[in-house]
Amino acid sequence: MNIGIYGYGNLGKGVEDAIKRNEDMTLSAVFTRRSPESLKIATEGVPVVSCSEIMEWKNKIDVLIICGGSATDLPEMTPELAKSFNVVDSFDNHSSIPKHFEKVNSSCTENNTTALISCGWDPGMFSLNRLYSLCVLPGGKDFTFWGKGVSQGHSDAIRRIEGVIDARQYTIPVEEAMNRVRNGETPDFTARDKHLRECFVVAEEGADKERIEKEIVSMPAYFEPYNTTVHFISLEEMKRDHAELPHGGSVIVSGETGKNGCHKQVIEYKLSLDSNPEFTGSALVCFARAVYKMFKRGDFGCKTVFDVAPSDLSAIDRGELIAHLL
Amino acid sequence: MNIGIYGYGNLGKGVEDAIKRNEDMTLSAVFTRRSPESLKIATEGVPVVSCSEIMEWKNKIDVLIICGGSATDLPEMTPELAKSFNVVDSFDNHSSIPKHFEKVNSSCTENNTTALISCGWDPGMFSLNRLYSLCVLPGGKDFTFWGKGVSQGHSDAIRRIEGVIDARQYTIPVEEAMNRVRNGETPDFTARDKHLRECFVVAEEGADKERIEKEIVSMPAYFEPYNTTVHFISLEEMKRDHAELPHGGSVIVSGETGKNGCHKQVIEYKLSLDSNPEFTGSALVCFARAVYKMFKRGDFGCKTVFDVAPSDLSAIDRGELIAHLL
Repeated sequence: MNIGIYGYGNLGKGVEDAIKRNEDMTLSAVFTRRSPESLKIATEGVPVVSCSEIMEWKNKIDVLIICGGSATDLPEMTPELAKSFNVVDSFDNHSSIPKHFEKVNSSCTENNTTALISCGWDPGMFSLNRLYSLCVLPGGKDFTFWGKGVSQGHSDAIRRIEGVIDARQYTIPVEEAMNRVRNGETPDFTARDKHLRECFVVAEEGADKERIEKEIVSMPAYFEPYNTTVHFISLEEMKRDHAELPHGGSVIVSGETGKNGCHKQVIEYKLSLDSNPEFTGSALVCFARAVYKMFKRGDFGCKTVFDVAPSDLSAIDRGELIAHLL
Repeated sequence: MNIGIYGYGNLGKGVEDAIKRNEDMTLSAVFTRRSPESLKIATEGVPVVSCSEIMEWKNKIDVLIICGGSATDLPEMTPELAKSFNVVDSFDNHSSIPKHFEKVNSSCTENNTTALISCGWDPGMFSLNRLYSLCVLPGGKDFTFWGKGVSQGHSDAIRRIEGVIDARQYTIPVEEAMNRVRNGETPDFTARDKHLRECFVVAEEGADKERIEKEIVSMPAYFEPYNTTVHFISLEEMKRDHAELPHGGSVIVSGETGKNGCHKQVIEYKLSLDSNPEFTGSALVCFARAVYKMFKRGDFGCKTVFDVAPSDLSAIDRGELIAHLL
């Protein structure tokens, strides 16, 4: 399988790393909006190509993995590129997924291509676990906890505050809330009950730290609904202690079976990730394999992780899977 | 969907309970090898029928869920019944699954039926998590821990010892081993490193308890490879404290990404089940839905959980799943 990477930020680099770990895949090219000469990628001998030349690669790439942002990039890129390529993206703006799906699906059905959107861990692996668990335990209740991990969106929001040079925001699940759910309780949590937000901020010299802290903790939607702590640190400390992008979390589904629901049944799916973009990239890559298998079977259109039979994710043949993993 | 239950032990009762929680399903009949008059089932108005009359139900049942034992029942029942019905079973003898698969697949392809074998939690949900996790993290290592929970097979083995009236065996995962894997280590464990076995035994009056204990802890395959503790209790204590069938466990997959594998990525799927047979029954029922959908699409043959697109497990339509669970 020949894979193309469209966009070379943290996620694109994660995809590149994952391709090396999958022997049936080859990285054909990296496409960038930057000047190709300015970009040095980690894989030797692979061309870096300007996005403007992508149509010349139409028949040389089996699946194109689009590594753009969900806010403005993917809503434009994925429907357009799906007209000419099989594509995978990680569109994660939950409320806009149905609209994104419709646009990508039109491109695919009109051009006989296959796409898979909203892949990664949430949406992605977490979505799968919500679905599987609620199918096994109908009437059950699902809880998603995120962290401990770096939220890029919240870090960016702090960076936009006047007087802030750099910032890192950790989302931290409230252990007590998780343990209540693990014990089979199904409380109605507020946002504050489930997560804490811890911020590390580098301020400009002489900046009013009290004002910055107040602006952070009162920021609507991002911080106001949570208990938030703010630590001011030096640029050196930021570089030394907060250079990584760990993340993770848990999907916990609690349901009942038996007479009058006498038996609690609890399912937890938990991720502990040293690198969020590399894990997301790894997920995109194995779903790219499934997209190519579906395309070759003539199964065109826009897909989600819900539509993929798990065996299609694997490079191992069916008999081996049955013998060794079932 | 009209569901039939073939066999009415603990698992059959678990399936019956699960059918009530799925509004698109109706229990049509329970088939038993016992005398039908002797059997009182939990659902009012549903016929209890002798297994010998099953062929009269050929066109009245969409999926037959076969609730027999893996040792001798299912290897005979599933291939035979799959000639006339769409079927689901929970065949869990891992080493014999490929042979069982071939026999059932022949029945299905010759008769245009759809079957799904080896469903439940292990094999079943645990298998799915091994597969998904190893696809996302190729080169990763998977660890399965069982318990704390009642092992029926080990309890039965103790009951066969002379002088034993009743027994309950709990499989207990070694917390320290689990925590090593959760921290990203990938040790080569022995059986003894991963699980403890705790036995509660009711002995006949005057029986030689020292001999019974020795026979238990030295039993090859079942107990000899483990650290085993034996407690002698009264029949009253057995009924009071050990009447339930809890179980569970974890599948943990540990992998690496990044330059020289610098980033650990750990995925854990954990079940905490108050009732093993009711959870297994719940899994069988949602996979029965998928079997019927596949059958209606003309997708005949023997399937496993690896072949089922997750959306086929759900009674909810695709648009709703995308909008609310993705």
